[in-house]
Amino acid sequence: MTPPSPFQEEVYAVLPFLRTAPAALHEAFFARAIRTEVPAGRYLCMEGDRCLHLPIVLSGSARIYKSGWQGREITLYRLEPGDSCILTASCLIGNHDFPAFAVTETDVVAALIPAASFHRWLGEYEAWRTYVFGLLWNRLIEIISLVEEVTFRRMDARLAEHLLKLTEGGPGAIHATHEALADELGTAREVVSRILKEFERQGWVTLARGLIQVCDPHGLLGKARQG
Amino acid sequence: MTPPSPFQEEVYAVLPFLRTAPAALHEAFFARAIRTEVPAGRYLCMEGDRCLHLPIVLSGSARIYKSGWQGREITLYRLEPGDSCILTASCLIGNHDFPAFAVTETDVVAALIPAASFHRWLGEYEAWRTYVFGLLWNRLIEIISLVEEVTFRRMDARLAEHLLKLTEGGPGAIHATHEALADELGTAREVVSRILKEFERQGWVTLARGLIQVCDPHGLLGKARQG
Repeated sequence: MTPPSPFQEEVYAVLPFLRTAPAALHEAFFARAIRTEVPAGRYLCMEGDRCLHLPIVLSGSARIYKSGWQGREITLYRLEPGDSCILTASCLIGNHDFPAFAVTETDVVAALIPAASFHRWLGEYEAWRTYVFGLLWNRLIEIISLVEEVTFRRMDARLAEHLLKLTEGGPGAIHATHEALADELGTAREVVSRILKEFERQGWVTLARGLIQVCDPHGLLGKARQG
Repeated sequence: MTPPSPFQEEVYAVLPFLRTAPAALHEAFFARAIRTEVPAGRYLCMEGDRCLHLPIVLSGSARIYKSGWQGREITLYRLEPGDSCILTASCLIGNHDFPAFAVTETDVVAALIPAASFHRWLGEYEAWRTYVFGLLWNRLIEIISLVEEVTFRRMDARLAEHLLKLTEGGPGAIHATHEALADELGTAREVVSRILKEFERQGWVTLARGLIQVCDPHGLLGKARQG
């Protein structure tokens, strides 16, 4: 047995099921998958694009978002290592146009699976079906949670929670503009600025240009839990 | 060839692909599918339930919704004839609990597909995969549109559009409480009542207990298009 190539090692790290997959799927995967590197800040897909490959992220992250009236945006989900863009998969399956925007947030390494192989493996390999349906399921649940969040929760609670996510729950510095935070949560910059000023008045954060310093994570947590 | 049974005719009407499906899928479908009738107002699934069957709606409609803080609700989507509950499918696939509520709005006739058959056919029949992935795709797109709608649109525009949907774009009577309209759109009853009063002041609707009379659909349309 030849030892795994560096590309195989990269893939195994995020798709462990491939290690134990049927030899035929394993062979087909590495015969068809194309390794690609994409720098940060590059559009992977624009709304209305046709998709030719399914990208599986090996390292880095990409943001999938919708853009709305008056330049507002909302993040639908992120692709992290092991994720694949299920909207792309759905486009490949149904021969539809891509319904959102996808942009790399960091340098990304991905394995591209050609549309024809993606399709054929769905019929041929249980392990591949399980992987693809698992992705679909997780995204559906994530997007339904987003509907809940946007519908039922107050923006101040959502922003408090988002700040805590960025500092991993502790005190810390967040390098982000109010605009970027607004685009994450689907609101206007003015709304974010107003809420941050209130958080500052409460002593939970201090604000400087392009910088939010979380100094009282407990205060933010209390706000996040209010609804 | 024996003529189709009444059940087969019902199924063909909503799943035309079965007429031309491989004989083996056709045979398996009618050997396994169970015809069931559910009266209006019955819960099909509660949040946290385990699903044992995939229901395919043959007639009637069911509402899939999330329930939030303070008794608020929002409709995620509806099952109409030919639809199947893709959240149920996802639960079957991933062995998860059902993440929402499903309730019949009218009397419903459905064909129930046992989980094991649903799974087996995904591996065996291209036509079945195409049907199931098509459902998944449509729901994902619908739920992403809902995220957009809730995030970017004003409630008065959404309510105007919803009233027009209920009267099919024309003038007409809507028998619904303000509470039911609020639960549809994910807001509070008071918000719906306030907006409806404003619509009445504009002369677009007249209000009575449990009744909204749309008298100026053009006025509502203008509001719906404002954002």
